[in-house]
Amino acid sequence: MKINGKPFRTIWVQKGDDKVIQVINQPILPHKFEVMDVLSCREMAKAIENMHVRGAGLIGAAAGYGMYLAALEASRQRDFEAYLTKSAEALVSTRPTATNLSWAVNRQLKAISQAEGLADKVKTAFDTANDIADEDAECCRRIGEHGLPIIKEIADLKNGEPVNILTHCNAGWLAFVDYGSATAPIYAAQAAGIPLHIWIDETRPRNQGARLTAWEMEQAGIPYTVIADNAGGHLMQHGMVDICITGTDRVTRTGDVANKIGTYIKALAAKDNGIPFYVALPSSTFDWEISDGIKEIPIERRSDDEVKYATGFYNGQLTRVLLTVAEAKAANYAFDVTPARLVTSLITERGLCEAKEESILGLFPEHR
Amino acid sequence: MKINGKPFRTIWVQKGDDKVIQVINQPILPHKFEVMDVLSCREMAKAIENMHVRGAGLIGAAAGYGMYLAALEASRQRDFEAYLTKSAEALVSTRPTATNLSWAVNRQLKAISQAEGLADKVKTAFDTANDIADEDAECCRRIGEHGLPIIKEIADLKNGEPVNILTHCNAGWLAFVDYGSATAPIYAAQAAGIPLHIWIDETRPRNQGARLTAWEMEQAGIPYTVIADNAGGHLMQHGMVDICITGTDRVTRTGDVANKIGTYIKALAAKDNGIPFYVALPSSTFDWEISDGIKEIPIERRSDDEVKYATGFYNGQLTRVLLTVAEAKAANYAFDVTPARLVTSLITERGLCEAKEESILGLFPEHR
Repeated sequence: MKINGKPFRTIWVQKGDDKVIQVINQPILPHKFEVMDVLSCREMAKAIENMHVRGAGLIGAAAGYGMYLAALEASRQRDFEAYLTKSAEALVSTRPTATNLSWAVNRQLKAISQAEGLADKVKTAFDTANDIADEDAECCRRIGEHGLPIIKEIADLKNGEPVNILTHCNAGWLAFVDYGSATAPIYAAQAAGIPLHIWIDETRPRNQGARLTAWEMEQAGIPYTVIADNAGGHLMQHGMVDICITGTDRVTRTGDVANKIGTYIKALAAKDNGIPFYVALPSSTFDWEISDGIKEIPIERRSDDEVKYATGFYNGQLTRVLLTVAEAKAANYAFDVTPARLVTSLITERGLCEAKEESILGLFPEHR
Repeated sequence: MKINGKPFRTIWVQKGDDKVIQVINQPILPHKFEVMDVLSCREMAKAIENMHVRGAGLIGAAAGYGMYLAALEASRQRDFEAYLTKSAEALVSTRPTATNLSWAVNRQLKAISQAEGLADKVKTAFDTANDIADEDAECCRRIGEHGLPIIKEIADLKNGEPVNILTHCNAGWLAFVDYGSATAPIYAAQAAGIPLHIWIDETRPRNQGARLTAWEMEQAGIPYTVIADNAGGHLMQHGMVDICITGTDRVTRTGDVANKIGTYIKALAAKDNGIPFYVALPSSTFDWEISDGIKEIPIERRSDDEVKYATGFYNGQLTRVLLTVAEAKAANYAFDVTPARLVTSLITERGLCEAKEESILGLFPEHR
């Protein structure tokens, strides 16, 4: 997508030096736009863990490039395999909930193992990383194509009034390589000339909605309003939301959806008010191994300080202000699971399906 | 309740000068404890509007004292009645959602009109203000007595494990004159030796849970954990919440509950997980005139900046940090309405009733 008119992805190989991976440094957004160099697999793991890069698809792409950097490093070690395995483990352990992470690492491990000779292994890792990134962008573009008719159908009933879309957290292009998952249908609808208005949950504690999704909409010129996470139910009660679209970090083969904490209660509010609740994802986000999201998806707990403090811009720099008494106890669950029964449909790169095993496998029969 | 061991109410007449009302300055809590003098009805209206005093019961008590100050001022004006009426209107217009405000102002207008002579009118206003404050404290104390058996019943099933209570915003003693509404049963349970743990929603955008309820629990030595507003659904899915208790700013005669924005979606999550959802209130919070909360209760919209910024403590002072792009659009709905069907019971000073007109009028037959 474009930043001040110039096209960007969220991750790329530096022009002129393919040993350097560059990413947009996300924690400082929207206050400053910075590009960050990542020079080793260890640095990539840190960048994922500290959320310089974050979001389902981007974590996968970052892990793909992380494995390429690991292969580069491993080719200078005595034991290529051991180094690669250790690097893979380090990457996978950075974020427990996201599936795309292990999906990308496993894809790299398999591709690299099939190549022969160190040079070929490194080249394979490089090509695979680029493929993962390109495919992520292409999947999101197709999610936009498949999501467009849903928005169009609502627009047709609204006589030129904007379609009000509520979204949670950031499942925008900053969470992927390009386009985003939840935002891809929004960009497609904008391109089709459909009037839109986006309600953006601020998404405490890390405020990725307020920080990132609002910035994306501002850059794209799409009308939006930032709201407290508490507000969505009230808006839905009063007919101010036509449709919810979120992203996801992991979907079971039965359609349970892990996404940023708070998604579940928005899905409950949508159900209670008869508002459709869509989840957009590239198929790399399916976890084909599990069937019960609430019991089986591990939920990351992050630092309690993210809850005790709020971070924002003050006096020209990121500043952390204390919200509670200094000695307060806090807990920081980063994701929750929305049961499949609350999801209207999944929007994937292959089209729509119900959040039910049979319907999902109908689109992805290779996972039967 | 006690602050560092010393008993306080949230509002009182200054010792030695009954023309000065003193209140705890709440926006600077929990970082500093400050007492603020209120010297005129106009200052009281400002203190309510700017939320130096806030919360259902305390707004009522503050309005009561505001009317006393107005009577004092009116007694020095040419037209007592006109000045009093204007003052009443100014007080009532400060916060649109809270019922206790107009309830207290109307009670004062009636009492003052029945007194004869200026001196007697002022004395009546003074006595009525004190009565409103004393009755608020006494109502909350009784809410505690009536709520205790609910918590005890859960405790009896938990074999010594703490009862996990989730609460939203601050319906603690800082929102009333003393004890609080949602917290009164908690204090009663503590006094009865029941092990407790309180989940405190931080309650964006003004963070009264993180700031005030956590401070109250810290002062009382009751174990608690502050969570993002997004987290409650996840906790309930995983059996980590035994009961929800919130306060309210207005309850219809049919049991619809206006409370801080976000209450509705927590009630949905409680329903979805079979967890009882109680609302505690003194009867001054009933609005006997209306029956449809979603259609009839006006919802206050506050400054969008409360959403765009977060306010906390930094470098020894309250500091406001920007969360979004500077030009972001935001909306700030301060309350929502939880339909009666989601409320297990109301806890009032006269006991428990269902959130249904017949049951409510059974406890308060004078409003039939």
